[in-house]
Amino acid sequence: MIDLNADLGEGFGRWRLTDDERLLPVVTSANVACGFHAGDAATMRRVCELAAEHDVRIGAHVSYRDLAGFGRRAMDVPPAELSAEVAYQIGALEVFARAAGSRVSYVKPHGALYNRVVHDEQQAEAVVDGVLLANGALPVLGLSGSRFLDVAEKSGLPVVTEAFADRAYTEEGTLVPRGEDGSVVTDPETVVERSLSLARFGVVAAHSGRGIPVRARSLCLHGDTPGAVYLARRVRAELEVSGVHVEAFA
Amino acid sequence: MIDLNADLGEGFGRWRLTDDERLLPVVTSANVACGFHAGDAATMRRVCELAAEHDVRIGAHVSYRDLAGFGRRAMDVPPAELSAEVAYQIGALEVFARAAGSRVSYVKPHGALYNRVVHDEQQAEAVVDGVLLANGALPVLGLSGSRFLDVAEKSGLPVVTEAFADRAYTEEGTLVPRGEDGSVVTDPETVVERSLSLARFGVVAAHSGRGIPVRARSLCLHGDTPGAVYLARRVRAELEVSGVHVEAFA
Amino acid sequence: MIDLNADLGEGFGRWRLTDDERLLPVVTSANVACGFHAGDAATMRRVCELAAEHDVRIGAHVSYRDLAGFGRRAMDVPPAELSAEVAYQIGALEVFARAAGSRVSYVKPHGALYNRVVHDEQQAEAVVDGVLLANGALPVLGLSGSRFLDVAEKSGLPVVTEAFADRAYTEEGTLVPRGEDGSVVTDPETVVERSLSLARFGVVAAHSGRGIPVRARSLCLHGDTPGAVYLARRVRAELEVSGVHVEAFA
Amino acid sequence: MIDLNADLGEGFGRWRLTDDERLLPVVTSANVACGFHAGDAATMRRVCELAAEHDVRIGAHVSYRDLAGFGRRAMDVPPAELSAEVAYQIGALEVFARAAGSRVSYVKPHGALYNRVVHDEQQAEAVVDGVLLANGALPVLGLSGSRFLDVAEKSGLPVVTEAFADRAYTEEGTLVPRGEDGSVVTDPETVVERSLSLARFGVVAAHSGRGIPVRARSLCLHGDTPGAVYLARRVRAELEVSGVHVEAFA
Repeated sequence: MIDLNADLGEGFGRWRLTDDERLLPVVTSANVACGFHAGDAATMRRVCELAAEHDVRIGAHVSYRDLAGFGRRAMDVPPAELSAEVAYQIGALEVFARAAGSRVSYVKPHGALYNRVVHDEQQAEAVVDGVLLANGALPVLGLSGSRFLDVAEKSGLPVVTEAFADRAYTEEGTLVPRGEDGSVVTDPETVVERSLSLARFGVVAAHSGRGIPVRARSLCLHGDTPGAVYLARRVRAELEVSGVHVEAFA
Repeated sequence: MIDLNADLGEGFGRWRLTDDERLLPVVTSANVACGFHAGDAATMRRVCELAAEHDVRIGAHVSYRDLAGFGRRAMDVPPAELSAEVAYQIGALEVFARAAGSRVSYVKPHGALYNRVVHDEQQAEAVVDGVLLANGALPVLGLSGSRFLDVAEKSGLPVVTEAFADRAYTEEGTLVPRGEDGSVVTDPETVVERSLSLARFGVVAAHSGRGIPVRARSLCLHGDTPGAVYLARRVRAELEVSGVHVEAFA
Repeated sequence: MIDLNADLGEGFGRWRLTDDERLLPVVTSANVACGFHAGDAATMRRVCELAAEHDVRIGAHVSYRDLAGFGRRAMDVPPAELSAEVAYQIGALEVFARAAGSRVSYVKPHGALYNRVVHDEQQAEAVVDGVLLANGALPVLGLSGSRFLDVAEKSGLPVVTEAFADRAYTEEGTLVPRGEDGSVVTDPETVVERSLSLARFGVVAAHSGRGIPVRARSLCLHGDTPGAVYLARRVRAELEVSGVHVEAFA
Repeated sequence: MIDLNADLGEGFGRWRLTDDERLLPVVTSANVACGFHAGDAATMRRVCELAAEHDVRIGAHVSYRDLAGFGRRAMDVPPAELSAEVAYQIGALEVFARAAGSRVSYVKPHGALYNRVVHDEQQAEAVVDGVLLANGALPVLGLSGSRFLDVAEKSGLPVVTEAFADRAYTEEGTLVPRGEDGSVVTDPETVVERSLSLARFGVVAAHSGRGIPVRARSLCLHGDTPGAVYLARRVRAELEVSGVHVEAFA
């Protein structure tokens, strides 16, 4: 059983990025931008309506306040500010999720914040505090072994792990940093194959070639590249053909 | 019986404007900025906590998206965008109200949006649609005779009227536009006297001197001027001394 | 002799809109977004470098401060603020134009501001004052018959008129408002034909079918639609084949 | 001979922070916010006019793009973006300086960027590249011994050092980080005394009590605290009484 999550609603005003209409029928969980790295209010509303139609779970994709940098620039935000900003984004999205007959079902940090809370204890705690402010029973989605999931678990939040079929892993099970050679897997067939291996056996070939265990309840698909929709469909189809049940975790 | 409302939480980041700590013990309803004209997330959180402590009702002070103009510049926002932006702001504030053990109890448009929906039917409908998206039972606070309250009432929202003791009225019961001679009443004693007259008899002296009926369940006090706190305290004290019960409408 | 202008650099951060690389070899004047409706600093720099390489004139495409609305929502900005905002944008662009070995050669209002100053005298004056603050000899580009060009001319600024081959005209020579039936001409062959007629004879077929005079030193091409590059190339090629000299006005 | 610099124009829209009117007659150099951490266009214009009236030099106080954090949150901005953002701010300010009959005479990084380029070589280079984009002969103002001034000097920019009479120094001549005990000197008499010692002898008492050499052509006065204007006046008066010539470096 596996969940498929993707970043959606990443337009802003006049600009579009993700192909929300065609990705929503494929995934089971939608990480919806909440206005801080992308996502104006009208886009958030539309994506929530589409997600509800397709019975896709709605997640708050919370970010640093950084439209110009798309939330990809690490920021030293004081914890109290960061907590409040996380809660703010969840609350704003909740309105549209509720109006569409659904609700915010989980929280996933975006971009630089996602990477930062893998190892930064203070910011991890700030994000968790923000989630707790909003809803003490809200699951969080993150990287296995991250400080973020540790802190969340200790605070009583349900935690869900995800894996990336299109990112290279070290033998220790961490992601090879973007920018390093071979950090991103671009061949579609390899991505499909890795998805199957992750979903069926909890194993992925590390950078070195050795199989390593990667426990994940969800696979993250990327929606902002050409061919993203095609690849997502292939992954889902192959998973189902091979007997993996594709189902939201929330 | 009268409610006293004031605009609060109108700082942003490093900047402060309203004296939230000293006004909250005086008013019964707080119009809290939600990030579009003022009000960062940490400020919203703090104001909601203080409001809950003082048993003051929390209202969403929704605005055009215009930090640089403090929401005081009319904007031709398409209705669907405006509705979504109104709902977004209500949702963001709701998180902090709930976390403080309270909830968003009403909605009041701010600044240029407040003035626009007095007569602009389309924007009035857009704001009402935004409130309905968030919560179909949420009272709205506005000017007696405004299109906004008419539209809200037709849509089934509870409506509450307010009056301004420090603004001049025409004989028709509308506000003398800011900028015109004598549009703002600055003498504290006159403001106190007008507050009493409004609360006790539903009457205020128009610009011409003639007493006119102005029905209002709430008086709006201004918090961004020197002396605002002193004046608010005077108004409340005089109301109570004269037997008027000061109580939130929500 | 005709100039071809197009809106360029209309991305922001992660988002792209206009195909700057392929349009710059076709046009003679580039209306470059300056950060208020689109255009982050790095994009502005890149577009200025490309424009200089192709010997394309750089114009400041000044806008209301409205990223969320892409500058398409009219705003009641007080004149002193508007003037300062216009000057700010021109100055910011000038740095990149100079660094690329060129300079800001003209100013054109964008979107809702463009439409507003066609008839709004006060905002027209504010924009002109902003241009004068920056440079009293800077040409402005606008609609023939607009208040903007009148005010600019009286203030001693060089004025340049433009026409739209893909927009319908009334018999009075004004544009049929967007949203009305037939306001936009979508057939590429018709656009090419109208471009030729405008450039060669200063005449265009009005909505009614009658030919009307439209005096324009520049034609505005649109760069944000699919097929925009192809159409721009067609227009330029046909103009040149028919003996029209395509040359910047500045 | 000493220069007195202060951060000015740190309002935004409705908000004010620095007492520009009363500080400008006291200082010789004004670090003017350029819109990224504070400083809307109308404020920039007004401060430049006042500065020119008082014959005060105008400096571009460049910052990370972070209004919500007042530029006080370190950000991992990619170098090419940071350079462009620095140039953008300088260009925007230049318009108002020129319009007031002056010009931008130097550049000083603000807040978190100021602190970052003390030691971060890559960001220091990015800021220097941004200054070079705007004007290869523009002096930069910074901390003695910082990477920023080293990089700027190697790039051929004139460099000017500044000292802080109200900040504690280590024996190595670096600032005691804010937040540590005793990092800020609050007693006005001590600040005056330290100013004199810095300006006359290039010496200040370190945290430990020992006098250490601190070479500075400029003293930074703070303008955002109560009593800032009074203290600035005292410092200037005492400097002049003791025979120090107060004069801008640029």
